[in-house]
Amino acid sequence: MNSKANAIVAQSGGPTAVINSSACGAVQEAMKSGKIGRVIGATNGILGVLGEDLFDISAEKPETIEALKQTPAAAVGSCRYKLKSLEESRADFERILDVFKAHDIHYFFYAGGNDSMDTADKVNKLAADAGYELVCMGIPKTVDNDLACTDHCPGYPSVAKYVATCAAEAGRDTEALYTHDTCTILEVMGRNAGWIAAATGLAATSPEDAPHLVYLPEAGFSWDKFVSDVKQVLKELRRVFIVAGEGLKDEKGKYITADSGAFAKDDFGHVQLGGVGDMLKAVIEKEVGIKARFNKLGTNQRTAMHFASLTDVNEAYMCGQMAVRYAMEGENGKMVTLERADGPEYKCTTGLAELRDVANGEKKVPTEYINDKGNHITDAMRDYVRPLVQGEAPIKIGKDGLPVFMRFERKPLEKKLPNYL
Amino acid sequence: MNSKANAIVAQSGGPTAVINSSACGAVQEAMKSGKIGRVIGATNGILGVLGEDLFDISAEKPETIEALKQTPAAAVGSCRYKLKSLEESRADFERILDVFKAHDIHYFFYAGGNDSMDTADKVNKLAADAGYELVCMGIPKTVDNDLACTDHCPGYPSVAKYVATCAAEAGRDTEALYTHDTCTILEVMGRNAGWIAAATGLAATSPEDAPHLVYLPEAGFSWDKFVSDVKQVLKELRRVFIVAGEGLKDEKGKYITADSGAFAKDDFGHVQLGGVGDMLKAVIEKEVGIKARFNKLGTNQRTAMHFASLTDVNEAYMCGQMAVRYAMEGENGKMVTLERADGPEYKCTTGLAELRDVANGEKKVPTEYINDKGNHITDAMRDYVRPLVQGEAPIKIGKDGLPVFMRFERKPLEKKLPNYL
Repeated sequence: MNSKANAIVAQSGGPTAVINSSACGAVQEAMKSGKIGRVIGATNGILGVLGEDLFDISAEKPETIEALKQTPAAAVGSCRYKLKSLEESRADFERILDVFKAHDIHYFFYAGGNDSMDTADKVNKLAADAGYELVCMGIPKTVDNDLACTDHCPGYPSVAKYVATCAAEAGRDTEALYTHDTCTILEVMGRNAGWIAAATGLAATSPEDAPHLVYLPEAGFSWDKFVSDVKQVLKELRRVFIVAGEGLKDEKGKYITADSGAFAKDDFGHVQLGGVGDMLKAVIEKEVGIKARFNKLGTNQRTAMHFASLTDVNEAYMCGQMAVRYAMEGENGKMVTLERADGPEYKCTTGLAELRDVANGEKKVPTEYINDKGNHITDAMRDYVRPLVQGEAPIKIGKDGLPVFMRFERKPLEKKLPNYL
Repeated sequence: MNSKANAIVAQSGGPTAVINSSACGAVQEAMKSGKIGRVIGATNGILGVLGEDLFDISAEKPETIEALKQTPAAAVGSCRYKLKSLEESRADFERILDVFKAHDIHYFFYAGGNDSMDTADKVNKLAADAGYELVCMGIPKTVDNDLACTDHCPGYPSVAKYVATCAAEAGRDTEALYTHDTCTILEVMGRNAGWIAAATGLAATSPEDAPHLVYLPEAGFSWDKFVSDVKQVLKELRRVFIVAGEGLKDEKGKYITADSGAFAKDDFGHVQLGGVGDMLKAVIEKEVGIKARFNKLGTNQRTAMHFASLTDVNEAYMCGQMAVRYAMEGENGKMVTLERADGPEYKCTTGLAELRDVANGEKKVPTEYINDKGNHITDAMRDYVRPLVQGEAPIKIGKDGLPVFMRFERKPLEKKLPNYL
């Protein structure tokens, strides 16, 4: 590799509280590696590459780069743009390579989920076929925690800490007003995997505590069972606090909200979910005959920097940093993984997985993390998530009493190719 | 007053992050006053009095009482039970007096909103008519910030800090994905007053920042104007982040969601709102032709202890404490108010208002706090809210990495009267 080989750092998919921490780790490590020229940001992930919409991150102020650690969402810019097979999307893949060549880019650090790892893998293969020297490394990112090959995924611990805290807090609200039977539903994210919903179970340290019922897509959902569960808790406590993952499915594997027709598909072709909270509320009001309310944290759960897990911020940074280090050591076509050491004390180091293994995999909440009734979690799940939510990430508070986030100056790189997008 | 006169501390209405801090101030001050025997908790406010459902707070562990400051919602227990006029609810009022007599209760400290101040005022009048020595003092509480006679209301600063932070954070989410026109709606509480929605405007320190549009019930809402506002922001930024108060009304003063039929009334007869976020989303998708999503923080906004305003926690404590001190000094039939000193530096002390003036009043967001277009706030609103959200309240984090909240042991007082409820 020539000594002025440039590197791209890019972000993809849904934002998290810590994807910028990963970018910070990658950028800072690349800048001090001595083997990389410019560190280039691709605005909005692979779309920024296709559009040659690039800017020089290494020219940003050091304090701006450092402040990535305390800024949620995706400061480089994210996208939901799915490349198909090399055959179907050949023009796109060739354009990517052209842009890399035009800007002397030989390192591609891509933070994202399995779709992004698929993209990185394919770009890597095309470069190899074309004889272009390229190192593609994946940095894990998804609040859903459903990436294969890694113990857990940066982004998840922070959403876990936040939603569990929200369950504890709103649970006290429900408890405060139990002068008549009350019900609160907390709808959380999780398309196919119930990791986020499961995390809220950590807040229930006694039968009094919320959440009393936790429903995951993995457990199979039955309306009869649900109504019966709700009545049982009401009988015991005169209140019920329910957590529901947005992707709840019935026994036939069909989304329970699929009939509502209020759906759109995102740019990856995923069904856009929503409305589970509203639907559970309606069913409870009709079938149980009590008033219910629902909270839908929406995108606030994945960007809650103000109460992010310090463990998560640190591990996310480590993943970005190690992606660069592994690349310097000659690794290629791999995603950094988090590996939890055996033993009572939590220790987490990094490992590597093939990009294609991550791209093709999916990790659901295992059966042993879900209770027999399918309406709460087990101690095994608690033991899994507890170490991840330890510590509170520091944030900078400004004169307005609110967190202060950074923005890049974004000095654009001069375009060298014809327009494409 | 005899030296073993007991005091009741009770809570009413919707929970907040700091109503327990007020209870802590009242309880600790009463216990060290030397003039009060037992400090008694009425479980679920006035309902606890009617049902003689009382417990001895002064017998709780000091650390439990201290931990009230870090526990959201209403640890004593709240209610939504509206007493009507003395004539219509005579049995209730006489029962209250009977319970007070039976337990030698001569002080009634009631934290709540204007309905609660109305209750306290009427109880006080009945006692005076009956020649029963009673001191009734109100402690202000409402996230809505719509209480008359006080500069602001404990509970509001914490929700203000939290929702403004949520707007800033979710705004970064919307910004991260602006590869196509995107829209996020944050629905916040506020039945008739838009104070909570207005607070989010503090997060917008540049035109780039969320929220780009803020709609308050006070400003009057027009669908045409709304669609035009959204299109204008999209033209400039390719994204739009909207904050909407749940109680938005059209130019005729009618709730914009009133047609949806998905309403119930709460026990005070207030219309239960909700669905504004969902409705704005639907209109944007139809009229503007872009995908929109909405976040509905629901009860999580009023119980977000994990990011409560330290100023709020301290002022709430002060209100509880001063209610007792004023009572010891001979005041009666008053609510403690917060008074902001003139001048550039924020200073806040307490004052007093007649319970009946608070009961009959309502404070809306003044016109000068809303911009001319009726879609954002002015600097005057920023200056009003900025000092209130300063500081982060300390919280205790447990071994699970989550906040730890207290619960009372609730040793019940022996019932001395026949059942009533």
